[in-house]
Amino acid sequence: MQPPRLTTLAQSLPDSVPFVGPETQERARGAVFQARLGANENLFGPSPRAIEAMKLAVADVWMYGDPENHDLRHALAAHHGVSANNIIVGEGIDALLGNLVRLMVAPGDRVVTSEGAYPTFNFHVAAVGGSVEKVPYRDDYEDPAALVARAKACDARLIYLANPDNPMGSWHGAGVITAMIDALPENCLLCLDEAYIEMAPAGTAPAFVTDDPRVLRMRTFSKAYGMAGARIGYAIGAQSMVKAFDKLRNHFGVGRIAQAGALAALADQVWLAEVLERITASRAKIGEIGRANGLIPLNSATNFVTLDCGGDGAKARALVAALAAENVFVRMPFAAPQNRCIRISAGGDAEMAYLADALPRALRRS
Amino acid sequence: MQPPRLTTLAQSLPDSVPFVGPETQERARGAVFQARLGANENLFGPSPRAIEAMKLAVADVWMYGDPENHDLRHALAAHHGVSANNIIVGEGIDALLGNLVRLMVAPGDRVVTSEGAYPTFNFHVAAVGGSVEKVPYRDDYEDPAALVARAKACDARLIYLANPDNPMGSWHGAGVITAMIDALPENCLLCLDEAYIEMAPAGTAPAFVTDDPRVLRMRTFSKAYGMAGARIGYAIGAQSMVKAFDKLRNHFGVGRIAQAGALAALADQVWLAEVLERITASRAKIGEIGRANGLIPLNSATNFVTLDCGGDGAKARALVAALAAENVFVRMPFAAPQNRCIRISAGGDAEMAYLADALPRALRRS
Repeated sequence: MQPPRLTTLAQSLPDSVPFVGPETQERARGAVFQARLGANENLFGPSPRAIEAMKLAVADVWMYGDPENHDLRHALAAHHGVSANNIIVGEGIDALLGNLVRLMVAPGDRVVTSEGAYPTFNFHVAAVGGSVEKVPYRDDYEDPAALVARAKACDARLIYLANPDNPMGSWHGAGVITAMIDALPENCLLCLDEAYIEMAPAGTAPAFVTDDPRVLRMRTFSKAYGMAGARIGYAIGAQSMVKAFDKLRNHFGVGRIAQAGALAALADQVWLAEVLERITASRAKIGEIGRANGLIPLNSATNFVTLDCGGDGAKARALVAALAAENVFVRMPFAAPQNRCIRISAGGDAEMAYLADALPRALRRS
Repeated sequence: MQPPRLTTLAQSLPDSVPFVGPETQERARGAVFQARLGANENLFGPSPRAIEAMKLAVADVWMYGDPENHDLRHALAAHHGVSANNIIVGEGIDALLGNLVRLMVAPGDRVVTSEGAYPTFNFHVAAVGGSVEKVPYRDDYEDPAALVARAKACDARLIYLANPDNPMGSWHGAGVITAMIDALPENCLLCLDEAYIEMAPAGTAPAFVTDDPRVLRMRTFSKAYGMAGARIGYAIGAQSMVKAFDKLRNHFGVGRIAQAGALAALADQVWLAEVLERITASRAKIGEIGRANGLIPLNSATNFVTLDCGGDGAKARALVAALAAENVFVRMPFAAPQNRCIRISAGGDAEMAYLADALPRALRRS
């Protein structure tokens, strides 16, 4: 008897996981991390008003969330000066990336990204049978001109660019991004992942040109708004593109608690400003700790700092492992030559003190 | 300049929505529903311990949830007497159905379901370019023999069967389901949606044969456990099938609050038993209200009762609209000839009193 089989495409995919969670490492080690600084979570957390709104929403959790995410889309529209019809809300950027790829990439179609950029995008592309073409970073920055040139050369359907960039923390100003959009080849969409944009200097985000079908901009409540575990993000783009998500998205996918929390978080811009100050201070502290130990901090417009360890991937990998042995969770999600670096998320005084204490020992052991 | 275009498949899909949420109707009407009885939500809500656990988890929402859902999978394994490797947790059954279809159905592949069965399954099949073949209900019951016969005839990759059934509320005993599994054609998987199984009489669920690759069983915390707005469900099946989900699922998709709530809900089986008693009482009450108004309640093993209105689709549709005008939200998610029915979810004394009061007026107006 022939058992059910996967599609040919599914059979060809590895049982891969884009990221192993810190809990998996904790279970393997039999000890929890004392400084959880590896997943670019926001240790300063969400607005107290968002926390209160989510606690209140727990009592209503017997109801499905509004599948249209109406109230949040309208609040976001007012916040960004666009129409609610330009906004699609989803279960985090990861889910929106999956939906976008399914809308735009057929088997054999090509997409372009940077070598070492966000692997979850590549994971989604593989799952639809698309082909990922990669261009190298240029001096530790993503290279918009090279991305566009490669897209032209391979007739790509999509370019993925994170600005500010994860994992490097580097960024380009709005002018560079706008020029990139204007240089896009025909029939190619720019997926502009702006997960960290609230943390970037003014002038990083281009103005919204919401009738422009060439770009879709991804935003999230997981980073600056501190709600990674709630699973809620959004995309802003041309109405035709946004509407297409209805063809295949999980309509009831965004939870009721998440919607309530996001609405309250967005309304508390005072808290956001305070968090951004703390992130700036922590970035400086991570840089200081790194330099004191011979590691070079790169400029960052995110809530993490990438530290150049001055060696190769093996050296950085050994340091990540040695830090884990010191109960510090950090990551090294890079491709060569950026894999000489490790990435450390911003945190509070306690985590920074823990890191300052642990790093010299980890360096001696690695 | 050619703007980016969707794939040929995506272009062919309607901008469809499997269900319109009650909030959309409320916004259109300018008034909220007083009795929200249309979405098979569990008005008795989750265990107080689950509510407490979710409120506590809100403080940790800055962290992503464990992408392996380790603790919940292990608790579910102990609860069901299977291995944690037989369980995959996802963002509700809807998300799991989407993943399953992407694993098993290539463009042009056929699947089999019942005419009028859960439309979200069909929505997911359309999105991967699959073809849905439908067999009629038989005396208001799903027809396992006809489903299997059609699957044989069309070389189907999947059969979808909900037991107990939504939208009819009818059910088959474990013996019928087991016989159906044994009669499956080669290379065809049974997707057994058991969203309502906790509400069914003993003897409805077959024993778990967890090394059987022919069947995948979907379960949820949205129904009996009262956590629809948290977005968490799971599937139980052969380890090879469960592992395949890692190839394309949204690994960080299940929220941290949802995981904490589900773990606590599962641990409180006393609350579950109490809720099931209330559902049974409410089913009887809905039947009584229906009969008093000339509507015939069908037997139900779910938290809703399907009422036969004794006419055609137009009559039932008018009654749903008239009930909405009375601020009662119910649905009519049926195909002919079952579209002579309306479907009403169980609720508490207040909602039942509201329904009893509103139904005669709605019938006069419809």
